Amino acid sequence: MADQDARSGEDKRPTGIPVLRWEEPPEGPVLVLLDQTRLPAEEVELVCTDPAALVEAIRSLAVRGAPLLGIAGAYGVALAAVRGFEVTEAAVALEGARPTAVNLAVGVRRARAAHQEALARTGDPRQAAAAALTAARALHREDAEASARMAAHGLALLDELLPAGGHRVLTHCNTGSLVSGGEGTAFAVALAAHREGRLRRLWVDETRPLLQGARLTAYEAARNDMAYTLLTDNAAGSLFAAGEVDAVLIGADRIAADGSVANKVGSYPLAVLARYHHVPFIVVAPVTTVDPGTPDGASIEVEQRPGHEVTEVTAPQVPVAGAGGGIPVAPLGSQAYNPAFDVTPPELVTAIVTEEGVVSPVTAEALAALCARSPQVTIS
Amino acid sequence: MADQDARSGEDKRPTGIPVLRWEEPPEGPVLVLLDQTRLPAEEVELVCTDPAALVEAIRSLAVRGAPLLGIAGAYGVALAAVRGFEVTEAAVALEGARPTAVNLAVGVRRARAAHQEALARTGDPRQAAAAALTAARALHREDAEASARMAAHGLALLDELLPAGGHRVLTHCNTGSLVSGGEGTAFAVALAAHREGRLRRLWVDETRPLLQGARLTAYEAARNDMAYTLLTDNAAGSLFAAGEVDAVLIGADRIAADGSVANKVGSYPLAVLARYHHVPFIVVAPVTTVDPGTPDGASIEVEQRPGHEVTEVTAPQVPVAGAGGGIPVAPLGSQAYNPAFDVTPPELVTAIVTEEGVVSPVTAEALAALCARSPQVTIS
Repeated sequence: MADQDARSGEDKRPTGIPVLRWEEPPEGPVLVLLDQTRLPAEEVELVCTDPAALVEAIRSLAVRGAPLLGIAGAYGVALAAVRGFEVTEAAVALEGARPTAVNLAVGVRRARAAHQEALARTGDPRQAAAAALTAARALHREDAEASARMAAHGLALLDELLPAGGHRVLTHCNTGSLVSGGEGTAFAVALAAHREGRLRRLWVDETRPLLQGARLTAYEAARNDMAYTLLTDNAAGSLFAAGEVDAVLIGADRIAADGSVANKVGSYPLAVLARYHHVPFIVVAPVTTVDPGTPDGASIEVEQRPGHEVTEVTAPQVPVAGAGGGIPVAPLGSQAYNPAFDVTPPELVTAIVTEEGVVSPVTAEALAALCARSPQVTIS
Repeated sequence: MADQDARSGEDKRPTGIPVLRWEEPPEGPVLVLLDQTRLPAEEVELVCTDPAALVEAIRSLAVRGAPLLGIAGAYGVALAAVRGFEVTEAAVALEGARPTAVNLAVGVRRARAAHQEALARTGDPRQAAAAALTAARALHREDAEASARMAAHGLALLDELLPAGGHRVLTHCNTGSLVSGGEGTAFAVALAAHREGRLRRLWVDETRPLLQGARLTAYEAARNDMAYTLLTDNAAGSLFAAGEVDAVLIGADRIAADGSVANKVGSYPLAVLARYHHVPFIVVAPVTTVDPGTPDGASIEVEQRPGHEVTEVTAPQVPVAGAGGGIPVAPLGSQAYNPAFDVTPPELVTAIVTEEGVVSPVTAEALAALCARSPQVTIS
């Protein structure tokens, strides 16, 4: 079961955002999650005492974001083992909570494999549970370290591209600690610049239709005392025209072998605007985002999402009226075009920043070399 | 006072959208308005029996859009005169309902001047009232005729630029009969193409933050049985990349002497995308939109609107919670950049379509020549 809890004040994350942590109170170990569905209005924690509660938290999007889901899944296996639940059953349930989330499955399997190995080796369920927890913590730590390395590489690149300093950075969607075991990807670079006193302004695209920028990135920026300003996605053009954007920093959902970048819809128009205004367009993503099995941008299948995300307005407190659970803002029966992602071709990408270093210019050869020297490519 | 009324079925507008009409039932003349604040959920008419009701309708944005406000203002003066109200007092109240709406003042003054002239000439209040009504009807008719001419010129241009036919047109904001005495500007061109069987698809930008595309343009398209699809503004990039846009058609709030076009925020990014993808970017606006007193784009002052339009979600049925009357979607205290307009430089505009003809390429000389031969320039 999951209990809702006020924030404990005991907060070990460097950003101060209590996204996910393992705790061991006298009543037994628990996984504590920030309920992201309640942001930014409320910071409510979910305390998961069993795998079923975590499955529900994943299903309801209380916890979300590719790397964070993997970490949560691994901790979920550890929780099952430590609490004496049937581990295989828990692992299947956790993987099934969001079947398309590759990272979730990877995290679950990693902890489960550690559990099985230790159990086979020692025959001791306590040692096996400890091994699962160790695996989860390792994944968590690796992700945080990768974030830190991306942030360092990204900030060095920014400083090189913008020697005058006082960076004004535009970002899109949500790429910070709410989706990561560490401080994220593109957001982590902006945060590093902020900590070094070199971030003059973070421009936050609201990111329609689901408003991850307004709801989540603005929350992360506010929690970190960054100078940020929210804008509608279509107002970015005016900022570029006014010379108010020094660089664009975005994440990536998938990077094809040729360097084409699939990311939240609205990224590609920013890339075109950046090119037109001679502004660097920088993608920040772990090496695992590069998919050598996808040759080019045209090979990336773009998920089409339900039209009601566009034709209805939803917010936590909005009463349900339309088919999609929101309030209709368009005539009933309106058809909507609602791609989840768009694809930016490599010629519009100034650089791809990974934990293993920076690729610039973006070419298939440079990306292949990066993947070849990375120990972390786990594409299956 | 204003009564809410179901639609009468007696509908003289060619588009079938009952935006504004003068009626003379046995109880006395009335001005009937479609309450645009209720769209697209409900078609509710406001029946104005006195100038005060019209002032309230203008203030509440039940009636809106530059040309339509001018027409409404002129009918408001006629209503005052016909119903025996003090005409000067009514005119002052009508102009003051939205002090920055230039067209409103122009319409009010035209009807009032006709009233005063006739009163001075004949000494007969009934003849003076009739003169005011005649002036209002003339303004209404002229505006409808200008729409029709823009539509014809625009469609001829589309057919010339896109000889293969099957036009797929992207539009932004709301430019149809809801803002016009006729069928509008950019929307009127798309509607003309539809009527001729040459419109394959109207792509409708939702137009954040106020969603005029989703709420109003989609409504106009639906009412006219056009093939339309709604999209978030940031999804337009994917459509261009996929080759799904043959032309962009937008209106204009102001056109500087050099051909720079101020229009709803989000127009400029479309112009950049259109250029990058070699797609025509066409501005449709009456000659009065050209302001010879504004030399260039940099001279256009862009209104900054309240941040709560971005940080809060509003819809007709949303309960009030935030400072702006909506539900907060961003952290409280978030600053927002919310320009009303953006400015597209002439080099990105393929053509400006007016009721007097088409200017292409867009140069200061060509615009000056257009204004010189137009009888309708009323910039003051």
